[in-house]
Amino acid sequence: MKDSIEKNAKATDKFLRSRLSGSPKSLYNAASHLIVHGGKRLRPYMVVKSCQVLGGSAARAMPAAAAVEMVHNFTLVHDDIMDNDNMRHGVQTVHKKFGIDAAILAGDVLFSKAFSTISASRLPAESVSKLISRLADACVDVCEGQQADVDMGRNPKFSSHAQYVGMICKKTAALFEASCAMGAICATSRPADVARLASFGRNLGIAFQITDDLIGAVGNPKITKKPVGNDIREGKKSLPILLAIRAARGKDKRDIMRSFGNPKATKYDVGKAVDVVRAMEIKDDVRRHARRYAKKAASSLNSYNNPAKRDLAALLDFVVEREV
Amino acid sequence: MKDSIEKNAKATDKFLRSRLSGSPKSLYNAASHLIVHGGKRLRPYMVVKSCQVLGGSAARAMPAAAAVEMVHNFTLVHDDIMDNDNMRHGVQTVHKKFGIDAAILAGDVLFSKAFSTISASRLPAESVSKLISRLADACVDVCEGQQADVDMGRNPKFSSHAQYVGMICKKTAALFEASCAMGAICATSRPADVARLASFGRNLGIAFQITDDLIGAVGNPKITKKPVGNDIREGKKSLPILLAIRAARGKDKRDIMRSFGNPKATKYDVGKAVDVVRAMEIKDDVRRHARRYAKKAASSLNSYNNPAKRDLAALLDFVVEREV
Repeated sequence: MKDSIEKNAKATDKFLRSRLSGSPKSLYNAASHLIVHGGKRLRPYMVVKSCQVLGGSAARAMPAAAAVEMVHNFTLVHDDIMDNDNMRHGVQTVHKKFGIDAAILAGDVLFSKAFSTISASRLPAESVSKLISRLADACVDVCEGQQADVDMGRNPKFSSHAQYVGMICKKTAALFEASCAMGAICATSRPADVARLASFGRNLGIAFQITDDLIGAVGNPKITKKPVGNDIREGKKSLPILLAIRAARGKDKRDIMRSFGNPKATKYDVGKAVDVVRAMEIKDDVRRHARRYAKKAASSLNSYNNPAKRDLAALLDFVVEREV
Repeated sequence: MKDSIEKNAKATDKFLRSRLSGSPKSLYNAASHLIVHGGKRLRPYMVVKSCQVLGGSAARAMPAAAAVEMVHNFTLVHDDIMDNDNMRHGVQTVHKKFGIDAAILAGDVLFSKAFSTISASRLPAESVSKLISRLADACVDVCEGQQADVDMGRNPKFSSHAQYVGMICKKTAALFEASCAMGAICATSRPADVARLASFGRNLGIAFQITDDLIGAVGNPKITKKPVGNDIREGKKSLPILLAIRAARGKDKRDIMRSFGNPKATKYDVGKAVDVVRAMEIKDDVRRHARRYAKKAASSLNSYNNPAKRDLAALLDFVVEREV
């Protein structure tokens, strides 16, 4: 499956590069900085495979695939400013390398190019209109989800499981859902097929984010290449952290709460909090939640039987069983 | 003409409000902050009048009109962050009131809503596809123009007249052009009509920005409610400033250059530079340039003869002969 993802990533990258060159160079260097330095292109893969599952070609899905990746990168660039993160994909974030102003503008041009790429595709107007509708609505959701995440972080109350899922549905799963729906739209005008793929994408997205939050809470930095414990220090009300805080007792609970949402927590304290959460074995519990959504996603594909369907099913395993 | 603009602004505002309410409230409060506090809605007016000039109704143009205003506001919100401006329309800028993170996200959601508003309109798919194409391409231009403006400011060399016009063509005129083209698209599928209105909008936009830069250089703050002299302090290579620097001699030139691009220039020095530029009477020269583009714009409307055409023509005078 890794081969299949990599092959598709190469084709996507070629197309992306052709769309992200222009003048002034300063703008496009900043806009393509993260794209040039990696990323798995999971979302473009979903677009292409969702098109193929319904009999469409990869080429037909390519403008939509590139557009989704541009939107994804736009959110990364702006999120990194908001989170004040220094590194991503092992390189400096855009605002660290080019400055905040350039990063705001780089995100904006990625956003603009996403829509211009779709409208410049040679798909029928009917399809273009539907693709734009899906993508724009997903962008609204992503903004709303991002703000909901910020608001939840500031709220002294703990969020409920439903609030957490509602938030990640918008922040993450909306673009996964749009990716698969858009791939489907490139291949067909049958609403039932588009709805099935959309449902697959949404549930895959929820499973993805739950797993991502598990990695953020207790992942091994050597494997994940992401710092661990930041989510605890930042007081992120992610599912693994909520479950851990709810289940912890006595000294364990005190050890977590000393670092939770405490920007002044020492590295030692944060490390201790992570160790406590790790020892609590909430991993299995969180994985169970992720697998439930993955199973829902898989059931949306029941009526299909072809290589692309198997690729999408394999993606589910890949996303949910990622090493933490 | 003022009545006509105000009447259209009311209808636009009603539509805008209906599209910019949602959850989380924190997001939509920030996104609608500037819109609630004023603005002339010039661009929506252009969309509606360009539709009417070709026989379309105002209602038909409303989603496109609102979308253009959302994009305009998105650029204001992000530009204010980049320029670190504190006030706009007599109220705090979005990032001053809500913080930079919220302002980035407010701009992003305005951008997203612009595209979702068009795709949710009941226009034929063919029109929606063309509207999106125009708007997205204009957004790319605005980003490129904004970066070109920044790059020109940093370049120690003076820009040429052509470079200045090239820059404002993208930074400002692209959205004016898109506004009129989009209005036309709402009414007709005849490319010649769309091209005429696009040309009207582009030249109107250039005339608008030249006049705006004149106001920025020598405008009377009591009339314009904008601080004067900032453009000189920031070293903006606008047409009026370029003309003044080129024509000034001896002590006059030294007085301008002491403040030009000098963030540490005192208020007194900047005031002196503004006085020198004012006394040079470059106003007439700059107005001549603006009028030349206004005349070009007017000629694009030659083949029409109806009330909407007269409204658009009146807009030209309004834009170019604004009090400075």
